[in-house]
Amino acid sequence: MTGQIEPIARMAQQLSRLPGIGSKSALRLAYHIVSLPQEQVRELAAAIWQGRKDVKLCPVCGNYTVEAPCPICADESRHNGVLCVVREPRDVAAIERMRDFKGGYHVLHGTLSPMEGVGPDDIRIRELVQRVQDEHIREVILATNPDIEGEATAAYIARLLKPMGVLVTRIAHGLPVGGDLEYTDEVTLAKAIEGRREM
Amino acid sequence: MTGQIEPIARMAQQLSRLPGIGSKSALRLAYHIVSLPQEQVRELAAAIWQGRKDVKLCPVCGNYTVEAPCPICADESRHNGVLCVVREPRDVAAIERMRDFKGGYHVLHGTLSPMEGVGPDDIRIRELVQRVQDEHIREVILATNPDIEGEATAAYIARLLKPMGVLVTRIAHGLPVGGDLEYTDEVTLAKAIEGRREM
Repeated sequence: MTGQIEPIARMAQQLSRLPGIGSKSALRLAYHIVSLPQEQVRELAAAIWQGRKDVKLCPVCGNYTVEAPCPICADESRHNGVLCVVREPRDVAAIERMRDFKGGYHVLHGTLSPMEGVGPDDIRIRELVQRVQDEHIREVILATNPDIEGEATAAYIARLLKPMGVLVTRIAHGLPVGGDLEYTDEVTLAKAIEGRREM
Repeated sequence: MTGQIEPIARMAQQLSRLPGIGSKSALRLAYHIVSLPQEQVRELAAAIWQGRKDVKLCPVCGNYTVEAPCPICADESRHNGVLCVVREPRDVAAIERMRDFKGGYHVLHGTLSPMEGVGPDDIRIRELVQRVQDEHIREVILATNPDIEGEATAAYIARLLKPMGVLVTRIAHGLPVGGDLEYTDEVTLAKAIEGRREM
């Protein structure tokens, strides 16, 4: 950031800490922000700071929320004995967009990853076990990503919960709707055939 | 931004107003920012707001600065009768990085563009003429970009300043250092040959 005046260099340095923003884009953004009306920049900075300050984790499900517990956990009609387990808050938003799932959530805030030193105590697995005991849960849907860490985490949780007498299910793997069989990788294809259903 | 809680939706909406940040990246950024330590987000928001507030335009050259006039305009040793005219503050930073140019600057804050309704009165041309009169300028180097609007702006300013008895020059067009002749477009190549110098 040589050759820049200090306020612009500092702004660019802070922006470059965000994911996907390299030092060149950060500098371009900083120059753009400096050229904006003060009022617009005030709104941007306030939305960033206020947003971070207002958002907390729901003490029950671990999703981002303004109130505690979050609106979903506070909604009695969603206490139907079904919990959907996801890796992060963004996944809750994705499933909610579908407007189809009527149970509760449990956000793990990560997946098991021996490579990165993330063990069972580092994600919200103990809290999940506690909820299954306390909340009369009949079914736990494991909706972690279909990648190595997501599968390993799902397998670990399944082993833990099954002895408790709860139904543990995994979201289906298969061809995405609108996908093309010809261009589907073999693993997905194998999963799709393995998971076939009678019509 | 459906399915997001309000503080995250608002943050994403503000971020998506920045250039090069679409609504999906804005949402990803907002989720990332919410997951950061409060202290780091406070620093980010402060750098953005404080940066915008601290930076003003130098009343002399139009470059971004904290003090008025800017350090370059305040530096007597750079009042050598040579002004380099650029489109925007970023261009000053680029030339300063070269550490080679010892004169002053004049930032136009735009280029003439009939298509977008930018005329001579919309950029800092009148201020330039005034400075040439007041500051005993011997040479004006036109360093606008080598594109249609940059060339048109340079030509317009040259026509305006020449009758005032000042030397008006244009930065050289040619092959970039390390460039490959074979892959150079014809216009650049023609300019490079036209601008050839004795060795």
